[in-house]
Amino acid sequence: MIRKLRRFAKAVTKPSYKDEFYHYPGTIPGTIIIDENAPPPQIYLMDYCQNNFTHQRLTAPEDCVPYLDQESVTWVDVQGLGSRDVLERLGRVFELPPLVLEDVVNVSERPKTEDYDDQLLFIARMVVPRERGGGFYSEQVSLVLGQHYLLTIQEEPEHDCFGGVRTRIEKAKGIIRRQGADHLAYALIDAIVDGFFPVLERYGEELEDLEEEVIVSPTRQTLQKIYQVRRELLQLRRAIWPQRDAINSLIRDRSELISEEVQIYLRDCYDHAVQVMDMVETYRELASGLMDVYLSAVSNKMNEVMKLLTVVSSIFIPLTFVAGIYGMNFNTEKSPYNMPELNWYWGYPLCLGVMGAIAFGLLFLFWKRGWLENSSTINRD
Amino acid sequence: MIRKLRRFAKAVTKPSYKDEFYHYPGTIPGTIIIDENAPPPQIYLMDYCQNNFTHQRLTAPEDCVPYLDQESVTWVDVQGLGSRDVLERLGRVFELPPLVLEDVVNVSERPKTEDYDDQLLFIARMVVPRERGGGFYSEQVSLVLGQHYLLTIQEEPEHDCFGGVRTRIEKAKGIIRRQGADHLAYALIDAIVDGFFPVLERYGEELEDLEEEVIVSPTRQTLQKIYQVRRELLQLRRAIWPQRDAINSLIRDRSELISEEVQIYLRDCYDHAVQVMDMVETYRELASGLMDVYLSAVSNKMNEVMKLLTVVSSIFIPLTFVAGIYGMNFNTEKSPYNMPELNWYWGYPLCLGVMGAIAFGLLFLFWKRGWLENSSTINRD
Amino acid sequence: MIRKLRRFAKAVTKPSYKDEFYHYPGTIPGTIIIDENAPPPQIYLMDYCQNNFTHQRLTAPEDCVPYLDQESVTWVDVQGLGSRDVLERLGRVFELPPLVLEDVVNVSERPKTEDYDDQLLFIARMVVPRERGGGFYSEQVSLVLGQHYLLTIQEEPEHDCFGGVRTRIEKAKGIIRRQGADHLAYALIDAIVDGFFPVLERYGEELEDLEEEVIVSPTRQTLQKIYQVRRELLQLRRAIWPQRDAINSLIRDRSELISEEVQIYLRDCYDHAVQVMDMVETYRELASGLMDVYLSAVSNKMNEVMKLLTVVSSIFIPLTFVAGIYGMNFNTEKSPYNMPELNWYWGYPLCLGVMGAIAFGLLFLFWKRGWLENSSTINRD
Amino acid sequence: MIRKLRRFAKAVTKPSYKDEFYHYPGTIPGTIIIDENAPPPQIYLMDYCQNNFTHQRLTAPEDCVPYLDQESVTWVDVQGLGSRDVLERLGRVFELPPLVLEDVVNVSERPKTEDYDDQLLFIARMVVPRERGGGFYSEQVSLVLGQHYLLTIQEEPEHDCFGGVRTRIEKAKGIIRRQGADHLAYALIDAIVDGFFPVLERYGEELEDLEEEVIVSPTRQTLQKIYQVRRELLQLRRAIWPQRDAINSLIRDRSELISEEVQIYLRDCYDHAVQVMDMVETYRELASGLMDVYLSAVSNKMNEVMKLLTVVSSIFIPLTFVAGIYGMNFNTEKSPYNMPELNWYWGYPLCLGVMGAIAFGLLFLFWKRGWLENSSTINRD
Amino acid sequence: MIRKLRRFAKAVTKPSYKDEFYHYPGTIPGTIIIDENAPPPQIYLMDYCQNNFTHQRLTAPEDCVPYLDQESVTWVDVQGLGSRDVLERLGRVFELPPLVLEDVVNVSERPKTEDYDDQLLFIARMVVPRERGGGFYSEQVSLVLGQHYLLTIQEEPEHDCFGGVRTRIEKAKGIIRRQGADHLAYALIDAIVDGFFPVLERYGEELEDLEEEVIVSPTRQTLQKIYQVRRELLQLRRAIWPQRDAINSLIRDRSELISEEVQIYLRDCYDHAVQVMDMVETYRELASGLMDVYLSAVSNKMNEVMKLLTVVSSIFIPLTFVAGIYGMNFNTEKSPYNMPELNWYWGYPLCLGVMGAIAFGLLFLFWKRGWLENSSTINRD
Repeated sequence: MIRKLRRFAKAVTKPSYKDEFYHYPGTIPGTIIIDENAPPPQIYLMDYCQNNFTHQRLTAPEDCVPYLDQESVTWVDVQGLGSRDVLERLGRVFELPPLVLEDVVNVSERPKTEDYDDQLLFIARMVVPRERGGGFYSEQVSLVLGQHYLLTIQEEPEHDCFGGVRTRIEKAKGIIRRQGADHLAYALIDAIVDGFFPVLERYGEELEDLEEEVIVSPTRQTLQKIYQVRRELLQLRRAIWPQRDAINSLIRDRSELISEEVQIYLRDCYDHAVQVMDMVETYRELASGLMDVYLSAVSNKMNEVMKLLTVVSSIFIPLTFVAGIYGMNFNTEKSPYNMPELNWYWGYPLCLGVMGAIAFGLLFLFWKRGWLENSSTINRD
Repeated sequence: MIRKLRRFAKAVTKPSYKDEFYHYPGTIPGTIIIDENAPPPQIYLMDYCQNNFTHQRLTAPEDCVPYLDQESVTWVDVQGLGSRDVLERLGRVFELPPLVLEDVVNVSERPKTEDYDDQLLFIARMVVPRERGGGFYSEQVSLVLGQHYLLTIQEEPEHDCFGGVRTRIEKAKGIIRRQGADHLAYALIDAIVDGFFPVLERYGEELEDLEEEVIVSPTRQTLQKIYQVRRELLQLRRAIWPQRDAINSLIRDRSELISEEVQIYLRDCYDHAVQVMDMVETYRELASGLMDVYLSAVSNKMNEVMKLLTVVSSIFIPLTFVAGIYGMNFNTEKSPYNMPELNWYWGYPLCLGVMGAIAFGLLFLFWKRGWLENSSTINRD
Repeated sequence: MIRKLRRFAKAVTKPSYKDEFYHYPGTIPGTIIIDENAPPPQIYLMDYCQNNFTHQRLTAPEDCVPYLDQESVTWVDVQGLGSRDVLERLGRVFELPPLVLEDVVNVSERPKTEDYDDQLLFIARMVVPRERGGGFYSEQVSLVLGQHYLLTIQEEPEHDCFGGVRTRIEKAKGIIRRQGADHLAYALIDAIVDGFFPVLERYGEELEDLEEEVIVSPTRQTLQKIYQVRRELLQLRRAIWPQRDAINSLIRDRSELISEEVQIYLRDCYDHAVQVMDMVETYRELASGLMDVYLSAVSNKMNEVMKLLTVVSSIFIPLTFVAGIYGMNFNTEKSPYNMPELNWYWGYPLCLGVMGAIAFGLLFLFWKRGWLENSSTINRD
Repeated sequence: MIRKLRRFAKAVTKPSYKDEFYHYPGTIPGTIIIDENAPPPQIYLMDYCQNNFTHQRLTAPEDCVPYLDQESVTWVDVQGLGSRDVLERLGRVFELPPLVLEDVVNVSERPKTEDYDDQLLFIARMVVPRERGGGFYSEQVSLVLGQHYLLTIQEEPEHDCFGGVRTRIEKAKGIIRRQGADHLAYALIDAIVDGFFPVLERYGEELEDLEEEVIVSPTRQTLQKIYQVRRELLQLRRAIWPQRDAINSLIRDRSELISEEVQIYLRDCYDHAVQVMDMVETYRELASGLMDVYLSAVSNKMNEVMKLLTVVSSIFIPLTFVAGIYGMNFNTEKSPYNMPELNWYWGYPLCLGVMGAIAFGLLFLFWKRGWLENSSTINRD
Repeated sequence: MIRKLRRFAKAVTKPSYKDEFYHYPGTIPGTIIIDENAPPPQIYLMDYCQNNFTHQRLTAPEDCVPYLDQESVTWVDVQGLGSRDVLERLGRVFELPPLVLEDVVNVSERPKTEDYDDQLLFIARMVVPRERGGGFYSEQVSLVLGQHYLLTIQEEPEHDCFGGVRTRIEKAKGIIRRQGADHLAYALIDAIVDGFFPVLERYGEELEDLEEEVIVSPTRQTLQKIYQVRRELLQLRRAIWPQRDAINSLIRDRSELISEEVQIYLRDCYDHAVQVMDMVETYRELASGLMDVYLSAVSNKMNEVMKLLTVVSSIFIPLTFVAGIYGMNFNTEKSPYNMPELNWYWGYPLCLGVMGAIAFGLLFLFWKRGWLENSSTINRD
């Protein structure tokens, strides 16, 4: 059991602590530390303008150079951080400042916006609900926005929430093909923020289920689940708070890379981030309230158990005592006062009658106190 | 029982989670997503100036065009969001920006104010107490204020709290007929904010009832009710907080669409919103305190149960032991030391006397500790 | 019992929820809604300058007109809100804006300051401790300050805390007779703020009593009292917070109606309001801590009860078992192994000895664990 | 016991509620209310410049007049507030505004700074640890800083923390004799702020002791002590928060009475006040956490008690039942099926064997569940 | 046991309270108070420019004078505060203001930045995880930045987190050798902030372990550990909050001693400080939630124990009563109604049958209530 729990705990909590990765105190600023287990980078390129559209997988970072100077919007999407060489070549191709590369690779960076005159760095945290089981995948995404290009760097190739955006570009849906790289950046940030909703919706459902479970049949697993939800909501909160600030500083700083129109869209996106925060806070309060309810429910159950014990004991212990009295061996022949009841003609029936009277009297008392009904509702649940 | 609870829970919590509706990450901004279950829109038009008054139901959005350019105030009230076609035609008639339409249709938008030069968008959340049972209906209302018109879009046609305003216009009560569209907008916002009061009053009463229930006879249902109240107050809080901010930005931004006089009225309305918030916070603290009281009350009850068990056990277990001693079968004939009491002339009465003395002694001790009185107050409740 | 509790609860909580009175959503702004149960207004007039002093009860609002234009300070004190007619005539006499009259009559208004150029409206909440029982009367007072007059409107004629001010004017104590209407307004506001102190002092005492009660002999009533105190402190908090803000905006807005000197006095008054808030917050924390103490104390008591039960059971249940063994009817004649002890010469004394040894052994163990002492301290309390 | 507790509670809490003294609502502002129990004032004068030093006790306030106009720094230290006459004469000698005298005498004033052009009033709260027992003396100190003099007014002559400053002046240690009255004021304020450290250190130790007590042997006294600490820390918090603000406004307002150099020292003093606040907050959190630990520890103990009861009952109740069976009186002669065991040759040993087997079986089960070890750790503690 | 606990507590908490060291109220500002147990200072000097590098241990503070005026960067690192003489000579060599020396020596100073025109004082708190056992070493580090030199003063020579920086200088890694003293200061501050990560990572792991322990097998030690973690996190919080503010004021104040480029690096460092704070707050919430879980888990366990007791008692007490009945000695010969069952042919088997039926009936009931399964899951854990 313990082992099972442990394994379970590990499986679930691993992603939650993964983002506590940090670079060792005293390392050179700008150092790129490659996590050995990180997947090797896959590089995808999308180049589009209103009429043309290319989508291909690149083998080397340098392959995207020809696209960068064109007027068309170039989206280079790097998935995976497992190669120092590729990352450093990327840095050279896009002329990234050294601190940017470090932030991109340090997968536990707080979401933030950094403005480097001709480039804009936006670090975000993306969450994707797991297909099976609860929880969510959490992954850092870095966006580097230039005049005509957008470089995005994801931690791993498996999950992202950019599917909708890719389809919109490919199918030329909406206005995205008519807009610049800033609009693409907005679309991705919006997808990241909106990506919190399905995750939160799940927690909403889980809280609803837990509420019922807590009140109807609280078990130890319930407790663990509530704590789990609280912990994961704390994580979501740590992800969305700075994200909101980052979007806000995108809006406030009015970089020249972002057009007026996209500013308006970003404000909408900011509203969504605030809404996510609201929901996270609400869910956290609900989860914390559920813990109180759990404690009360457990106390309640114990109360019922104690009532049953008390009813049974209070009825049978006195009866047993009466039986014990007539089981005494006082010598009835030595004295007429020694348990003359034993020799009465109606002695035994009388004795049973007295016991019955005691039992029913006590039952009546308990019934009046309402202990019997309550005690039975437990049964009927 | 479980099923009943589940059904109960569903029935009550549905509206509370309904507003967690969201648009899928990656969808095009400005997309209008129609909820299939949304009721079809009904369009009502009121056109009035000091002397004239028209009130009619329109069949098509375009029917209101002739009213819009007149000096008279035109109030177009759309109830229901169930038709993309109607909404898009509305958008064209009122020349709404695409993001506005999206906000209007996305029924989980946070209350907010958006200023589009010649139009002012105010998104509010309206609550209406349910006729039967606890809880409330919660519905999004969008107000689009123009120079001479006001467009309001409600989620559904069934409940709103604009009855008073409609009567005032129809009966020409107060100054509303002498004022412009901005005053109408104020009157509706004021009605929405004041609409929180009857809902809150109900929670005030419910908390009072719960307080009594918790102290006199706490059951599992009490626990559930308290949690329910807490959850619904959290919802109210999420609705009123941004509403206050939205009203505040209406006042602060000093749009040209809103006259000086209406500004003063809006400040009054803002005061009411703050008062609502105050009440919500107070009720939340009371509800949270009730949970503590509940836990204490349950502990208290268990204490009483334990006392009874202890009193009964502590009295009868020693007595039963005494009876058990004289039930032993030591052979009195083999030795004068083997239970000579059994052959005494007064053996049995003496034995009963000893038992009585023990019982009364213990009862006296318990009485001195005050356990008997306390234990009996439970009974009298 | 329930009914008694209910009646008790009603009696105490009524005033606490009275201020939740609100005007129905959709009513015309500026509407005066008269509470049917409100007492009829009594109008008192005080007119004074350094040398003259008049104090009389007026029968009609118009009777104060002759005093208003004089240089002397005129204080019109209206007590009771039960007549629409009188209030509207008052409004005309003092030329009050319509929203002012509404605020005055709506007795659940948040304390606030409104500046209407030649008039200053200050809405305050006055608390007066009840003569008997706990709790306090809470009443809204509206002050309208003009150039040479002050109009005060109280909810009811019975309680106020202006006695000291009236005496100072009448007896010409202090500087009040030499000062203008603004000083009178300050004196009344100061009296209102200082009026919180006796109420708070009572809660201080009540908390001290409750603390003792909680630790020495916690009962269900204790729980109820703590919750009651918490609820009433919440009310006080809701009253004093906005009051502080209102005084602050009086100071900050520097209306021309308030002289430099009175500003200095108001700052002193503001300090007192902050002090009241401090005390309310401290008391709230103490009350909330008491709830924890209560829960712990109840657990503690249960612990003691359980210890007694465990001691008694653990001693007598094994003894009863021993007695039970020698109460078995094995046929000693069939075999020398069948309970030969029964036929021993010292069988019975030996058996008693064994029982005594078991009992004393267990008692010794319990004594070493310290259960016997603890269990007895309960008794000695 | 109750009385003892009550007396204890009184003794400790008196100082904690003493500062809740207030002036009655409606009294004239500037009124001096003399507490009858206040000690009579003792007036000490220190006059010093770099080379001269006088220290004497004055009999009348007017005796300090000759010193005030000199260039040398004059420190008049009044200890005790028990005479209206002396205080009013002081007011005249130092030309104090009336509100200042009121603030000085009202010993529950919030710490604050008031700037009266040629005088600076600083009201502080001084704490001194009690020599014996826990707790601390809390006393209001008012400082009035003039061009060449400093007037300090303390509540009582017994405790203060100015000893170090007096010695520095007397022995001409440090730079204090070369500096003006502003430096003296700083030195006293610094002594007051630093005076919180020894008090806090004590609470640090008490919390450490309580933590051990809570985990090893929680009793009712522990609970009371924790609550006591929480209450006293709340008091300290109420004293230090406004003190910090007062020092801050001393620094920010840049009065001409305070030199640039002393400003720098005051900033250091401000840092210390912030540090005190930090410690108070940390201790409050620790104390509040201890309450949780207490509750858990009590639950834990009850758990152990219940385990013992359950182990004893679960073992002996079945055994007693077995013994009860063979104590039944079925007539073995009437039928071979009526308790033939009683007549078996090995009946009794077999019966004892069965009982032993049951007992050991159950013990083994409990041991496997770990109940026996846990139950015994309690004993070993 | 108590003693062991005490010793344990002391060992662990000493460092946690050590920083509560304070200077006695009333001491002269600028006084250097040497802690007797402080280790004697060791002085190390590093002097480097792009091409040269010296690293030596100095015997006297004056030995570093020749290096200070050179263009090369000089880092004087003093480890240990145990000699007033050395510190005062240091003060003269570096021309430190008196308050700076006091702050440096007072090892419980709050982290802060002070700008003295040509010198910049930065006081930081450095944490280093203990090699064995939990907890961390906490030590104050003062940095004095001049034009071409940096003076650092540490509390003790044993632990610091500057190893990485020393290596980078020695091995000329990164850009540090090409930069000025401001970059060195940044590198050290960055190392201090990053030094919180390994400490926090440990608490992350400890919380994970505790979570499992709490749910699977909560003991008293668990409780203690949770409280310990909470206390140490509080300490970390007190260290990092002001550190963040200090770094922020470094950035905001734009001292001339810090170049533009280092400002950018400092902003990165500030981000890390915020991240540390985030993690501390998250861990504190988790730890506080664990306390609730603990309480619930203990209640849960008690519930299981009570269930077992109730099941055993409820089954055997009635059975024992039945056996007691047939153990009564009514004289069957006196009357046919006196326990005729004893003489029945099938009396005994019937009686056993009835008992069995009762037992199985009750077991069935308990099984239906789910008490038996739950009770056994405990066993399987």
